[in-house]
Amino acid sequence: MDLNNINDPSVVKNLSAEEMLDLAQDVRDFLINNLSTTGGHLGANLGVVELTLALHRTFDSPKDRLLFDVGHQSYIHKILTGRGPAFDTLRQYQGLCGFPKRNESEHDVWETGHSSTSLSAAMGMAIARDLKKEDHSVVPIIGDGALTGGMALEALNHIGHEKKNVTVILNDNEMSIAKNVGALHGALGRMRSAGKYNRVKDDLEWILKKIPAIGGRVASTAERLKDSMKYFVVPGMFFEELGFTYYGPVDGHDFEDLQENLEYAKKTEGPVIVHVMTQKGKGYHPAESDVTDKWHGVGPYKIDSGEKIKPASAPPAWSSVISEALREEARKDDRIVAVTPAMVLGSKLEKFGAEFPDRLYDVGIAEQHATTMSAGLATQGMKPFLAIYSTFLQRGYDQVIHDVARQKLNVIFGIDRAGLVGADGETHQGVFDIAFLRAVPNMTIMMPKDENEARHMVHTACQYEGGPIAIRYPRGNALGVEVDDQAKELEIGSWEVLKPGKDAVILTFGTTIPLALEAAETLNSQGVDAEVVNARFMKPMDEKMLHSIFERQIPVVTLEEAVVQGSFGSAVLEFQSDHGYYDREVKRIGLPDRFVEHGSVKDLWKEVDFTNENVVKTVQNLIPKSEKRA
Amino acid sequence: MDLNNINDPSVVKNLSAEEMLDLAQDVRDFLINNLSTTGGHLGANLGVVELTLALHRTFDSPKDRLLFDVGHQSYIHKILTGRGPAFDTLRQYQGLCGFPKRNESEHDVWETGHSSTSLSAAMGMAIARDLKKEDHSVVPIIGDGALTGGMALEALNHIGHEKKNVTVILNDNEMSIAKNVGALHGALGRMRSAGKYNRVKDDLEWILKKIPAIGGRVASTAERLKDSMKYFVVPGMFFEELGFTYYGPVDGHDFEDLQENLEYAKKTEGPVIVHVMTQKGKGYHPAESDVTDKWHGVGPYKIDSGEKIKPASAPPAWSSVISEALREEARKDDRIVAVTPAMVLGSKLEKFGAEFPDRLYDVGIAEQHATTMSAGLATQGMKPFLAIYSTFLQRGYDQVIHDVARQKLNVIFGIDRAGLVGADGETHQGVFDIAFLRAVPNMTIMMPKDENEARHMVHTACQYEGGPIAIRYPRGNALGVEVDDQAKELEIGSWEVLKPGKDAVILTFGTTIPLALEAAETLNSQGVDAEVVNARFMKPMDEKMLHSIFERQIPVVTLEEAVVQGSFGSAVLEFQSDHGYYDREVKRIGLPDRFVEHGSVKDLWKEVDFTNENVVKTVQNLIPKSEKRA
Repeated sequence: MDLNNINDPSVVKNLSAEEMLDLAQDVRDFLINNLSTTGGHLGANLGVVELTLALHRTFDSPKDRLLFDVGHQSYIHKILTGRGPAFDTLRQYQGLCGFPKRNESEHDVWETGHSSTSLSAAMGMAIARDLKKEDHSVVPIIGDGALTGGMALEALNHIGHEKKNVTVILNDNEMSIAKNVGALHGALGRMRSAGKYNRVKDDLEWILKKIPAIGGRVASTAERLKDSMKYFVVPGMFFEELGFTYYGPVDGHDFEDLQENLEYAKKTEGPVIVHVMTQKGKGYHPAESDVTDKWHGVGPYKIDSGEKIKPASAPPAWSSVISEALREEARKDDRIVAVTPAMVLGSKLEKFGAEFPDRLYDVGIAEQHATTMSAGLATQGMKPFLAIYSTFLQRGYDQVIHDVARQKLNVIFGIDRAGLVGADGETHQGVFDIAFLRAVPNMTIMMPKDENEARHMVHTACQYEGGPIAIRYPRGNALGVEVDDQAKELEIGSWEVLKPGKDAVILTFGTTIPLALEAAETLNSQGVDAEVVNARFMKPMDEKMLHSIFERQIPVVTLEEAVVQGSFGSAVLEFQSDHGYYDREVKRIGLPDRFVEHGSVKDLWKEVDFTNENVVKTVQNLIPKSEKRA
Repeated sequence: MDLNNINDPSVVKNLSAEEMLDLAQDVRDFLINNLSTTGGHLGANLGVVELTLALHRTFDSPKDRLLFDVGHQSYIHKILTGRGPAFDTLRQYQGLCGFPKRNESEHDVWETGHSSTSLSAAMGMAIARDLKKEDHSVVPIIGDGALTGGMALEALNHIGHEKKNVTVILNDNEMSIAKNVGALHGALGRMRSAGKYNRVKDDLEWILKKIPAIGGRVASTAERLKDSMKYFVVPGMFFEELGFTYYGPVDGHDFEDLQENLEYAKKTEGPVIVHVMTQKGKGYHPAESDVTDKWHGVGPYKIDSGEKIKPASAPPAWSSVISEALREEARKDDRIVAVTPAMVLGSKLEKFGAEFPDRLYDVGIAEQHATTMSAGLATQGMKPFLAIYSTFLQRGYDQVIHDVARQKLNVIFGIDRAGLVGADGETHQGVFDIAFLRAVPNMTIMMPKDENEARHMVHTACQYEGGPIAIRYPRGNALGVEVDDQAKELEIGSWEVLKPGKDAVILTFGTTIPLALEAAETLNSQGVDAEVVNARFMKPMDEKMLHSIFERQIPVVTLEEAVVQGSFGSAVLEFQSDHGYYDREVKRIGLPDRFVEHGSVKDLWKEVDFTNENVVKTVQNLIPKSEKRA
């Protein structure tokens, strides 16, 4: 079938068994082909080809609501809902989004990106349906990894309690992002190996009939044994205990098994969980045989060999720079423990884990727990380093305030993927952390300009005993600069002048430093001598330097890859106001007050006006005023 | 025993059974007496008298770590650790904190206030202990309500997986704050009624022996039946499935039962859960017979009758004002659904629930789920009103950003307890929400000056279709003003001039308006004509009015009961900078960049310099400069 001609998911309704198999193969070929040039979440999608086809066969989207948790596994759904032709633009600027997107299709009823949201959203939809007296299914599709996120467990607990008709599809590939962790995973394992629920139930009934009539002391136990068979060691006990009817385990690559169970589930009253076993990467050998999950999200690759097509040679990734610096510190300081919520690979902690197996804790997708567990470690004099993506730290915000900062505990936050992240798009942009952390007392926040400074910052954080301290660093590769022999301790709150100047000052840090330096050069050619300052501490700021800048009576421009409201630039305005430096021009450049979608960081910078032209113009616009006053 | 003479918890180690009973009675009398004048969390503490004594008998604090989840049930622990004499200052300014506090005692190893943190902290402490090769117990004490919080479930999952020695005490009083919700609660109920684990296990073994030798088809099922007895319907199955050894149910008011099980638990390797049944309010009749949980947190009361000692007559509570306005709207608009995370009482939603039983959802202590469930409701055209305390909204921050604001869904946030909350202290101050919400695109934030405006704001929010909208309102009582016949729609972003003036402008909102008006009066007597503006929308701001203010070239003071960094005052500075209004003085008054402890709001205002004198002085300091320029 030419997948580019599919406009409507009803296409799968009337296919024969053989045609379904053919379609599944076509979909796999399509994905493997297309993603070999665009990159994308290949493994997860190859795992749910049959499941997605079967879901669209059983349910009527968009009347029935399909909610893809995390959403990186929604590619087949996108193909079936008319978006095949757009796949050559996948995850590219103004192209097809890598996650469900409501403005792309009426079939995308819930947007995702972060994990574990689908059950709560489904519960909201189910309540709305019942209040409006409508009749349709609500079907969240959630992975076994996402299920251990706190909010998914909160939702399970509530759905089971309210007995709403919600049909949960548990897509169990034994992975979260990489290898799954958590006791629930063990429980799922027992379910997987237990065999079919119904057969076991029958067997049990047969056995119980063999028990002779029992009286006396054990009568009540025997009675309970009979009454409560459904709570027996049949696979879904854990879920049945929470009020769900359990179907499974289902072979996620067998259409017949899928269809039968989904049909049952559709007809069942109350909350249902269909436990579907899938294999990540199914049907593409390099991805199938990948135990380290390097095929979770991929860039372009050669189809035949699975060889990744990489740019020639690049400096190390920022995540590597940080985790290697941490490893160096950990050799000298056995108080250091690394904690990550399911991001051992993303945050490049494999080597740390190999060298210090008892000092790396991957807690699964559980950012709240990760944050407060780090606080618990710190109360005992340990030095926890929590490696966490900026966007996921939002999940641990109360824990940062209430558990870490309020108790002034020495937790080091390694805030990974700070700034615009590119292809993952608006759900993943790490642009709020400065604003939301700066409001919290006792916080120290810094960002390095290059890998050398990164190393010093990791060292500084490990020495620091004044409460929580955050090092934020971007996605992608570092700059490739040389690194000092010795890591040194930076003075907390100290900035550095990168280029002196007498006509204006650009205060910036991290990723925007090269842009500021470029602008300073252009300004120089226009007769304006602009200073560029590496404002590497966002909190506390270098007050001494700020005083000296404001005393020089020259205009100030702040430049940062963070939301403009409430971030670093606002801190500078606050300083200005607090110290009465009226009559000084301060202009902020930052990200606009709207969500920024996916695309290469380069494209996005252009979109948000992070250009040499804009920085130069902003400085120039302030100069005449300043001169007039002088 | 004179409880004021207890300095060390070891006092309970060598008491006879009879002496323990006497001590328990003394503790109850002490609590009932003291709290009748100071107020406090009476019910929860009366429920854990025997449990706390037994814990200190079995474990050696502070070597063994006792972590009180939520922490309002730590009064007996405080008495046993030498703080009896301070109970007449409980929850008062610079007095004894109502929660564990590390600077009060070495026996307070973990500070709480928010729920569900203790298991994560305990896991951190257990990891630290094992890395340091120390030998002691880590004992989180958590209620059945707090257990349904997402992070507690994340922690259970991780502790069970890692098999660390953590001794969880589940204090099951069948309440969260009020009546518990959630499927897990049902599971706990089955455990409670199931009888003792060990007896059932013995019975089961006896029954299984009676089963004749079985071959053929059912052999494997029979084998599994025998192997997996521990996963059978014995009470703790749910926890055993997660990797915990389960002891219980234990009678939490029977020392012998408590002691026996705690001793077992202490000796058991790996994670343990001791399921203790307690009765909230135990031993004080008015609290015991309280099914609505009005004795959870109380003010002063008459001991004999249990009659609450109330101030003569007061205007309605802010929570009532808002929920009554919502009820009025709900009569006209059946899209409105109220959602609360375990705060039906606190947010005064009883009447709403009585009138619209199918349109109020109490989801339990589950702020993340509450937020995203509201988003799910909104996708279906409903108008969810999420009533949530400011401090607890921190738990749903990622959900606000990722699920609500990013999808621009019409969720109404009723942000209760905004500002300083008084006796609950630093864990509960609602002072960060403006800073953290203002950074989020698509958000609208407002705060009413009185109950009449509150009603208009609720109406406005219900009419609004532009995305999320928040109404923040303080703890305590409204002003008692008259209310208009008709609720009217406010223009989004519109401010109002409360008192015109030509020499300076004070921009303020909500609780600080009376202070601003008072200052304006004082200033008037000093010859300064200050304008007072009700800046009731913090986002978006009234740009037209701001332009006109800045064009008047007079100094501006912002005044708000919120952290000074990043909140409303900073938004005004940003506006000033963005529009090039240099040469204008803007000074911000807000809460300092540190955590503010407990005390009456009046005392706290004095501490943070929210005084007429300070506001007057701040305005006066700006006047000369302005005049010099004029």
